[in-house]
Amino acid sequence: MLVLSNEDIEKLIDMSECIGALEELYLDMAEGKALSSPRTDNLAPCSYEGAYYGFKHMGGTWPRRAIQALRINSDIVTHPQQNGVHRRVKVPLAGGRWVGLVELFSTETGELLALFPDGVAQRTRVGATNGLAAKYLAKPDAKRVGLIGAGWQAGTQLMAVLAVRPVVEVKVYSQRKESRETFAKEAAEKYDAAIRAVDTPEECVDGVDIIMCGTSSMLPVVRAEWLRPGMHVSCIKTQEIDAAVIGRANRVVVHTKHQAKQIDNVMPGTPNIIKEHLEGWWNQPGTRWEEFCDLPDLVAGKAPGRTSPEEITCFVNNVGLGLQFAAVGAVILEKARKAGVGHDLPREWFTESVHP
Amino acid sequence: MLVLSNEDIEKLIDMSECIGALEELYLDMAEGKALSSPRTDNLAPCSYEGAYYGFKHMGGTWPRRAIQALRINSDIVTHPQQNGVHRRVKVPLAGGRWVGLVELFSTETGELLALFPDGVAQRTRVGATNGLAAKYLAKPDAKRVGLIGAGWQAGTQLMAVLAVRPVVEVKVYSQRKESRETFAKEAAEKYDAAIRAVDTPEECVDGVDIIMCGTSSMLPVVRAEWLRPGMHVSCIKTQEIDAAVIGRANRVVVHTKHQAKQIDNVMPGTPNIIKEHLEGWWNQPGTRWEEFCDLPDLVAGKAPGRTSPEEITCFVNNVGLGLQFAAVGAVILEKARKAGVGHDLPREWFTESVHP
Repeated sequence: MLVLSNEDIEKLIDMSECIGALEELYLDMAEGKALSSPRTDNLAPCSYEGAYYGFKHMGGTWPRRAIQALRINSDIVTHPQQNGVHRRVKVPLAGGRWVGLVELFSTETGELLALFPDGVAQRTRVGATNGLAAKYLAKPDAKRVGLIGAGWQAGTQLMAVLAVRPVVEVKVYSQRKESRETFAKEAAEKYDAAIRAVDTPEECVDGVDIIMCGTSSMLPVVRAEWLRPGMHVSCIKTQEIDAAVIGRANRVVVHTKHQAKQIDNVMPGTPNIIKEHLEGWWNQPGTRWEEFCDLPDLVAGKAPGRTSPEEITCFVNNVGLGLQFAAVGAVILEKARKAGVGHDLPREWFTESVHP
Repeated sequence: MLVLSNEDIEKLIDMSECIGALEELYLDMAEGKALSSPRTDNLAPCSYEGAYYGFKHMGGTWPRRAIQALRINSDIVTHPQQNGVHRRVKVPLAGGRWVGLVELFSTETGELLALFPDGVAQRTRVGATNGLAAKYLAKPDAKRVGLIGAGWQAGTQLMAVLAVRPVVEVKVYSQRKESRETFAKEAAEKYDAAIRAVDTPEECVDGVDIIMCGTSSMLPVVRAEWLRPGMHVSCIKTQEIDAAVIGRANRVVVHTKHQAKQIDNVMPGTPNIIKEHLEGWWNQPGTRWEEFCDLPDLVAGKAPGRTSPEEITCFVNNVGLGLQFAAVGAVILEKARKAGVGHDLPREWFTESVHP
């Protein structure tokens, strides 16, 4: 059983391979050959002031690569108010650190194959998903990208779009000048494209082929009037865009409409809960939900992608799936084994000679 | 993070303490201060002939002892036919072993505290549950026990009844003569009571105060006509008794009526599924379901227990709960820490410096 660290995984991971694995997974999903299990959240009181304990898990079974994934988050959560808005802040009480884990099991032998923190895998699966959507929806010759966001998630959004299109120019905007400049500087050193920070969102999106959002914003960051014929708009959560953006798009693809229902178990006495996903326009009447298609169906050719260079396309990464960790996990595991990294613990510790 | 083995746990575990922890947990459950999450089963095809892959998990949050438990089973399952009946057989393909795990997290810090195989914990939580029920339902001076079953589960049923009543005599019956004699011989050496095997079920239950079932039978093992005034009947699954037994009982307690719904995700193409729990009489009309009470309500005094020495009482351990692993896990963890056993792995391996 292989224990890996985020640092191990960061060195190993390859965005193109992750997008490839996800593509293969979604072909299977479209044919009923991969299985998600619902995300379950248990929320209960804990003694840290104003906080609650949140235990979240979601899984996915992917027979083609013989992987069962389980992703677990075990968090102490607070909701401090900042400028009148409640934020969601996880408190690092595990020796100054946080707790998110991915476990991979073999669907052929049952055994626990690997266990690692979820950080790098999490942002990679989000990036890979939006990259895969861009591969099917953006113009084939898309060269210019406007990236909104300069944090942890924006990094893998950038990697992903570079992996699927011949990008030559990237403009980066985020609210804090220092963040966007640091991000752009570091990215420019890492990648071949011309990457620079810009001072307004309007400048960021002006003349680009692809707008990629990768923020933690609870308010829209893209305006409908910015959209031009031929553009592709990509976002990692529903809150980053609004109904007007959806209205301007000729084709809207969402991650999945078929997500197994999320289960919330909330214990009485749990303080100060705000829903993580304030859906807003998303569930309002007139959202054209029936016209949206799924990313797996798009990948499998069951739903059309872009049909002309003038179309405006939009991908909304509306929910996460435990199955994504099976795809990214399969890549990580294969590469880790080849590279011989991680702590390899005895199989006997994680198996047993009885079966209740 | 402590990795324990079944052998470690077997040496550490104390049935009285487990019953005590479960009692404390059920007091909390009755007041909404403990939280189960539903059992989820993903079933999918695998390449082993005639088999499918089954991934099962269930959890429970118990703030009083600051424990979040997750129990995972990852199995290759076949259903061979034997004498016209399909049996459920797990194939040990993980290096000749099986895969069932319990993970314990802290609800105060979030961290993964321990991970161990589920075997000993599983049979202990079943035994402790039936022991707890016997504590509240059997006559206080119950001295004679008829134990039906001589396998893995029967062992903890015996431990449990010895922990809650002044038992002096135990008769053991199971279908295979060799099994019951070996079981009785080993138990007689271990415990103070007079324990012996008997050759018929009628002899086993004749003159006893408590009938305890601990079998894997899919067919009833107790007959209504065996019941006498004052008896307590205990079973570990609904199939061990039938509607006639329930009809003869003056008071019927079930483990829980409020179980979070089980979720079955079955992939198309999964071979030869038979439901693990053939409910039979259980869900038929006239089952007096509305008269049954829950074990947590019984423990909390919200439902009456035995009210006279003549009553016939019956406890049906109808479903398992992830929460039981929090109670048994809390005991195991405390004792393992005190004894200094197990492999203590660095906390850094199971935590991270980012939080997606």
